Amino acid sequence: MDGEVITIGDELLIGQVINTNQAYIAEKLNTVGVFVERMTTVGDNRVDILRAFRSAWEMYDVVCVTGGLGPTHDDITKKLVCEFFTTDLVRNEAVFNDVKALFAKRNMAWTASAEGQVLVPRTCKVLRNSSGTAPGMLFEEAGKEGKKYFVVMPGVPFEMKSIMDEELLPYFEKEHFGTVVRHRTLKTTGIGESTLAAEIGSIDEVIGTDGTTTLAFLPNPLGTKLRITVRDNSVEAAERKLTAAEQKLRTHAQQYIYSSNEMELEDVVGALLTERKLTIAVAESCTGGLIAHRITNVSGSSNYFKRAFVTYSNESKIETLSVAKELIEQHGAVSCEVASAMAAGARKNADVDIALSTTGIAGPTGGTPEKPVGLVWIGYADSKDSLALKFNFNDHRLRFKERASQAALELLRRKLLKLEIRK
Amino acid sequence: MDGEVITIGDELLIGQVINTNQAYIAEKLNTVGVFVERMTTVGDNRVDILRAFRSAWEMYDVVCVTGGLGPTHDDITKKLVCEFFTTDLVRNEAVFNDVKALFAKRNMAWTASAEGQVLVPRTCKVLRNSSGTAPGMLFEEAGKEGKKYFVVMPGVPFEMKSIMDEELLPYFEKEHFGTVVRHRTLKTTGIGESTLAAEIGSIDEVIGTDGTTTLAFLPNPLGTKLRITVRDNSVEAAERKLTAAEQKLRTHAQQYIYSSNEMELEDVVGALLTERKLTIAVAESCTGGLIAHRITNVSGSSNYFKRAFVTYSNESKIETLSVAKELIEQHGAVSCEVASAMAAGARKNADVDIALSTTGIAGPTGGTPEKPVGLVWIGYADSKDSLALKFNFNDHRLRFKERASQAALELLRRKLLKLEIRK
Repeated sequence: MDGEVITIGDELLIGQVINTNQAYIAEKLNTVGVFVERMTTVGDNRVDILRAFRSAWEMYDVVCVTGGLGPTHDDITKKLVCEFFTTDLVRNEAVFNDVKALFAKRNMAWTASAEGQVLVPRTCKVLRNSSGTAPGMLFEEAGKEGKKYFVVMPGVPFEMKSIMDEELLPYFEKEHFGTVVRHRTLKTTGIGESTLAAEIGSIDEVIGTDGTTTLAFLPNPLGTKLRITVRDNSVEAAERKLTAAEQKLRTHAQQYIYSSNEMELEDVVGALLTERKLTIAVAESCTGGLIAHRITNVSGSSNYFKRAFVTYSNESKIETLSVAKELIEQHGAVSCEVASAMAAGARKNADVDIALSTTGIAGPTGGTPEKPVGLVWIGYADSKDSLALKFNFNDHRLRFKERASQAALELLRRKLLKLEIRK
Repeated sequence: MDGEVITIGDELLIGQVINTNQAYIAEKLNTVGVFVERMTTVGDNRVDILRAFRSAWEMYDVVCVTGGLGPTHDDITKKLVCEFFTTDLVRNEAVFNDVKALFAKRNMAWTASAEGQVLVPRTCKVLRNSSGTAPGMLFEEAGKEGKKYFVVMPGVPFEMKSIMDEELLPYFEKEHFGTVVRHRTLKTTGIGESTLAAEIGSIDEVIGTDGTTTLAFLPNPLGTKLRITVRDNSVEAAERKLTAAEQKLRTHAQQYIYSSNEMELEDVVGALLTERKLTIAVAESCTGGLIAHRITNVSGSSNYFKRAFVTYSNESKIETLSVAKELIEQHGAVSCEVASAMAAGARKNADVDIALSTTGIAGPTGGTPEKPVGLVWIGYADSKDSLALKFNFNDHRLRFKERASQAALELLRRKLLKLEIRK
C-alpha cells in the first residue's frame, strides 16, 4: 500500500519546530506494509489543508494526517475533515469517558473546550487516545483496488505515538496489507565503517540475493550501526530473516556488537557489572564528568558505581588520586603513565574492583606538536591488570568528550568480556 | 513572497532520517522575506520529483529543493532539474576550482564522480559550496508579479547551510522582497511559564498592537524561552523593534533572563566566574557528574573549574567531602544538612572559592513517603555564605538530572549576580 503523511501547523512552516512526527509515522507504517511516497506540510489554513487532502486522497491508499486537533481557534483540522468527507460532528460517549477520566486524573475542572474535544465526525471510526484529549479518527472508503484509509491524529508527538501504537498499527496489522517491513539494528563501536565492512565480507552471503533483505551501515561519532531491513509477507517470516541475518553478522563481527536493541553502552556495561557483582569508580580529566553522567543515567547504577573524581587540575590528580607529582612533571598530565596512575589511584582510594580514567586535550586550544588537540589516554585498572590506551579524537569539544567516554566504556566492556584489547 | 521547500530522499520516506533541513530553510527564508506555505518530501524517483517541481513552481514564487545531488546512481536531482528547465549540463570552471581545492585539502585523488560534480545546468546561476562538492543552483524566471526563484541545494545539512548562509541569503537580501522577519530569544529559568507571564503583565504593552511583533512563550524542562518575532520592511527597523521589545521584557523579568543569544547557562556562569576571577568545585550525588560535564563543555573552563566529587555512596561523601557520618545517619543522605555539608566540604577540600552540591532521589525507585522520587537538595558554599535549597523534579531519570543541574547552575548565577535567592 502506498501512503502520504500530511502534517499541519504554522509552527512547522516557520521552522520553529522540527517535524519528527512524519519520520515516526513513516517508519511505523512500513512495519504494517504501508510505504510512504510523499510527505506534505501545510499551515493552519483552510485552502491549503483541503488542497493537500484532495491531492493525497486522489493519489494514495493511506493518508495519515497530524496536527490542528487542539481546542484553540487555530485548530481547524476536525472541521475541515468533516467538510472533506461531507459529514457532521457528533458527541461520542467512549471519547467522553476517556476525556473525563483524563481530566479527573489531572485534577482539572471540565471546560467548554473539553466539550468540543468529545465531538467526532459521524462517519469515522474513533482511534482512542490514552495520552490526551484529542481522539484519532479513521475514515475508510472503497478505492479502485480495495479499501482506502484516511487517518487523522493529534500533532502532539506523544499523543500521536500512543494512538499509532495502541490503535492504528494493531488495526492495520489485522487488515493484512501484504508485505511488512521489519528492522533490526546492531550497534558497534571501536571499529571504523570500512574496517567493519571488510570484517563482514560478502554482503550477499549475509543478506542473500533475493532482494528482500537489505543492510545499511550507519556511521556516527560513537560507532557504526548495522541496520538490517527485511520485507516479507508475514511478521513471523520477517523476524526469522532478521534473526538469520543477525546471526551471520555476529559470526563475522560479534566482538564489536555491543547491543542489538535500544540499549546504550552504559546499559550494557551496567548489566555486566551487576551480573559479575563488581564495583566501579572513574577518574576523569578531559571527559569532565561525562563518563560518570552516562553511568548514572542507568537506573540501579548506585549498586555498582561508587564515585567519580573529576580532576581537572593537577593538584586534584595529586590529592584525590594519589598521582605522584613527579610523574606529572616528568611525563605531563596527558600521558600513558598519568592515565594509568589515575586509574590505579581511583581504584584504591574509592575501594572498588575496577577504575577507568581519562586524560587528554579537549581543545580547541591547549595542543602542542607532540600532544595535539584530540589526544586522549584512557586508563583501566582492576585487581590483576592495569593499562592505558591512546586515542586521537580531533573533533569539536563536546564530540571529543563523547567519543572519549565511548572509548572508555568500550574498554570496560571488552575487559569484562575478556575480549582482545588492541593497543 | 510565498515559497515551498521540497526535500528529496528515500531515507526521509522510511523515517530513517528526521528532516531538519526544511525547518532550517524555512526559518532562514523568513529572515529575507520569503514565507514558506508548503513543504513536500518525495523519494529518489523521477515521476514524483517532477510532479513536486511542477506543482511548486505553479503555485509559489520561491522554491527551495534539497537532496539528490551526490555522485551516486540514485542522485538524480540535477538531471531532472535540467529536464524541468529544458537545459543541459556544462562544465563550470569556478565549481571545478572549488572541487579541486576541496580534494587537495582532503588529500583525495581526482575521480570520475568528481568530474560529474563540476557539471551544472547551463541556464542556472551557481551557488558555490564551500563545504562540499555539490554546488547549489539558482534559476530565475519572470513570473506574473515579478521574478520567481528556483533553488537547488545538496541535502547534506552542513553543505546546505553553508550555501544558504554564504550565497543564497545574501543574494535574496539584495533582491529586497519587502517584509523581513527577525527573531530574538530570551532564555529564562527558575520560573514557571504562567508566573513569568504574570510578571511580564500586559503583552500589548511589550509588543505593541500593530500586529508586526509577536511574543511566544516556549516552555521546556530547563526553563521558558521568550521568543520575540518582528516583521518589518527593513532589517534595521526590525532590529530596532526587537531591541525595544527586549528592553520592555527586561524591565519586568530581568532577573530570570540568563541569555539573549545562543549562550547556555554554563557559558553564562563561566563568563561570570572568569570576570570575577573565582574558582569552583562541585560535589554531585544525584546529578552523577552532569554539572561537571556541563561546566567542562565550555572551552577555557579549566581556568575556573578545578574538580568535581561525584559521590554516589555514603562512604565517598564521608571520605572525599568530609561529611560527618553522624550527619548522614541523623538526617539521611538526601537532606538540607548533608547538601550544605557536601558544598562546604567540596569547597574546603578542593581549595576553591565556591562549591555547589546536589543530593536527591533520581528514581524511578528509591523514594519514600517523606522523601519521594524527584526530591533534591542543592547546596552552595562560598567564603561568606552557605545554604541549601529544596526542589522537586519528579520526572524521568535523565530529565531529573538535567533539571537539577540547571537549578544548581542558576543558583550559582544568582549568587554571582547578587540576585534574590528564594528558599
